Amino acid sequence: MIRFYNGLVLTMQGEIKPEEAEVWVDGDKIAFVGVPTAQQLENAVFERQTDLGGDLIMPSLKNAHTHSAMTFLRSFADGLPLHEWLTQQIFPMEAKLDDERIYWFTKLAILEYLSSGCTAALDMYFYLDSYVSACTESGFRCIMCSADSGDANALTAIEDAYVKYNKPDRPFVKYIPGLHAEYTCSKELIEGIGALARKYRTPTSAHNSETASEVAGCIERYGMTPTQLLESVGAFDFGGVQYHCVHLSQQDIDIFKRRGITAVHCPASNLKLASGIADIKAMHNAGINVALGTDGPASNNALDMFREMYLMSVLQNIKYNDAAAFDALDVLKAATVGGAKAMYLDDCDVIAEGKQADLIVIDLHKPNMQPINNIPKNIVYSGGKSNVRLTMCAGKVLYENGEYVIGEQPEKIFANAQRLVDEMK
Amino acid sequence: MIRFYNGLVLTMQGEIKPEEAEVWVDGDKIAFVGVPTAQQLENAVFERQTDLGGDLIMPSLKNAHTHSAMTFLRSFADGLPLHEWLTQQIFPMEAKLDDERIYWFTKLAILEYLSSGCTAALDMYFYLDSYVSACTESGFRCIMCSADSGDANALTAIEDAYVKYNKPDRPFVKYIPGLHAEYTCSKELIEGIGALARKYRTPTSAHNSETASEVAGCIERYGMTPTQLLESVGAFDFGGVQYHCVHLSQQDIDIFKRRGITAVHCPASNLKLASGIADIKAMHNAGINVALGTDGPASNNALDMFREMYLMSVLQNIKYNDAAAFDALDVLKAATVGGAKAMYLDDCDVIAEGKQADLIVIDLHKPNMQPINNIPKNIVYSGGKSNVRLTMCAGKVLYENGEYVIGEQPEKIFANAQRLVDEMK
Repeated sequence: MIRFYNGLVLTMQGEIKPEEAEVWVDGDKIAFVGVPTAQQLENAVFERQTDLGGDLIMPSLKNAHTHSAMTFLRSFADGLPLHEWLTQQIFPMEAKLDDERIYWFTKLAILEYLSSGCTAALDMYFYLDSYVSACTESGFRCIMCSADSGDANALTAIEDAYVKYNKPDRPFVKYIPGLHAEYTCSKELIEGIGALARKYRTPTSAHNSETASEVAGCIERYGMTPTQLLESVGAFDFGGVQYHCVHLSQQDIDIFKRRGITAVHCPASNLKLASGIADIKAMHNAGINVALGTDGPASNNALDMFREMYLMSVLQNIKYNDAAAFDALDVLKAATVGGAKAMYLDDCDVIAEGKQADLIVIDLHKPNMQPINNIPKNIVYSGGKSNVRLTMCAGKVLYENGEYVIGEQPEKIFANAQRLVDEMK
Repeated sequence: MIRFYNGLVLTMQGEIKPEEAEVWVDGDKIAFVGVPTAQQLENAVFERQTDLGGDLIMPSLKNAHTHSAMTFLRSFADGLPLHEWLTQQIFPMEAKLDDERIYWFTKLAILEYLSSGCTAALDMYFYLDSYVSACTESGFRCIMCSADSGDANALTAIEDAYVKYNKPDRPFVKYIPGLHAEYTCSKELIEGIGALARKYRTPTSAHNSETASEVAGCIERYGMTPTQLLESVGAFDFGGVQYHCVHLSQQDIDIFKRRGITAVHCPASNLKLASGIADIKAMHNAGINVALGTDGPASNNALDMFREMYLMSVLQNIKYNDAAAFDALDVLKAATVGGAKAMYLDDCDVIAEGKQADLIVIDLHKPNMQPINNIPKNIVYSGGKSNVRLTMCAGKVLYENGEYVIGEQPEKIFANAQRLVDEMK
């Protein structure tokens, strides 16, 4: 077993305040949380004991919307207007992707996830076998969703991927079927996703109401918002997860609530692309599960859940003209428990006995975490990746004190990613 | 001399693109920038040679508006509405400040500044002798401005501070006279600052147009905006620096331009307190010097200029509904050259021979800086304090690879700050 002692634990359960307790990890699971008796300590066999030195252990962060392999487009042609950026720069580059490129660009993203305390990402992209390899070889959870668009011919590939990537003997790999977005898909494809949801009794996913023009276009095409349309075809019959949700109507919010849909908030991307500020407070108050995502590096450009947590908090202040619009604890919940729920990772959400050991150690002995007036607020308002001392996924330490334990050294990943992106230019 | 070699230099002069060059530091000054000849290398005597390993050297960041010692209020009672927060929580705590407390709370801030690549802060607070001690003992530049409010009785203290803290033999210490803000000062005090500016031919400073209600109140009281009022009394006769500038009129912007006033943008604070988004693009286009500031930790809560750079960029996007509203290079300029100009640190702005050696080394070998498509964009859009490898002020290395060289260890500063804040609660 691995023992973490002499620190604080934020379980993200119950009252949610840091408490003095030990955490023991056995295999991939949390075996014990609390103050052990002398007898318990005597009986335990530890292969590793980590003195937290007063630092904090908490659930790892979960990135509920991203396009990881788009690391190759970081700082590439930013600053162009959106349409030119997409058509003149992004699409021609994406056309050159292949398995090798996806593999290394995803590995690069995983380095950044781990250094910022994230152990799972809900990824929408292409060449999924390469993505599965990059993640599973790194020990990082691989949760994918459909990036498909176009006409109903895409349905076969979506159904095949659903069957292929959801195997009981591969708990690290999951696939949620769905659409890229309403505006990139034919009516038949959208209806087909509804049929697929009913056939397999599965949740579905899509980009939803990211921009005002997307919603206006959908209303023009179908007389309905994207949310109403997806519900009408049955795509929400078994729940699901929708990305961005910047321009939801009250009726849309009611549908999310009724159907148990997770809304994934991507504040950095929505700022950078000038999409707007989602009404997270309204969704939260309606009882909708809210998760947080970075979106891809082309539209962020970081893959840093601390930045998303900070933005989630302060953007609601400016939206509501209220310096106390949204509670820091609810932000922390979205980044941990909410994200796990979005990915249907029910056993990766909190620090409790029997749960998966997906956890991080936050270094409280950095100037941005001092003094200790309120630890959750410190994390949300002034925390950052420099406070991540250790990242563990399924009981394995993947990142610690700036070093990675994922099979490859960062320099090799950087060199391969740079070579491959230079070849594409 | 200290030699930095085998890396890139972003001088922030001329075309502003990273170039392969060495930087040599002699005493407190930059002695050489470029590719040395064999002869130059042979003649030079180096006490230290640092292999940059491909990393980047650039001017340090300058924090042009802060209240450093307010670290003690980090995460203290955030989440209350503004008025209650101020009157019930902040003011009663501030009343308990003294010299010892200011000293340690400022030291805590300096740790955070150095870890995020900042070597100078324009500080508005109280107990200035303690602030001077905390800064100068740490090797950090001490630029202060008046925090005074109330009636004309404050003028004596302001004039005394101006004379006391501006000595030719203490280049590390400066004091800019001025006001806390129009709405906290009597008409006589405001007029007195104008007279002081003329008497000493000095720039002045103040919080200006931070909130819409502040501007409305000023117009009600004086029939003028705060900017018009300050100009009318002569406070801008010799330039100056104004903080926040969220709600400037076009006429105000014209005055800033005509009078050579620096506008200090504090995007994180303006978001958190729901003050609004300053029109930085309009100011920049008008040719006004724009600098960046964190504001105090009570209203931020971090003291991280990378966060401010990121926010400066994306908030203009959302304000202008344009994904390409503001150039990343102009953000970098504001955080370096613009900040130096705001503080009248004319010799601390760029990497050039004869300038003060106030510089940082950016670690490009972290996942958030890869691949290298565009370094300035990487820094602004995805950079952070984890990329700061070294911070040098006036030729002295104050921070390197997570370790501080400022006379005291962080743990001692943390312990003193925690003890003192606990005594105040």
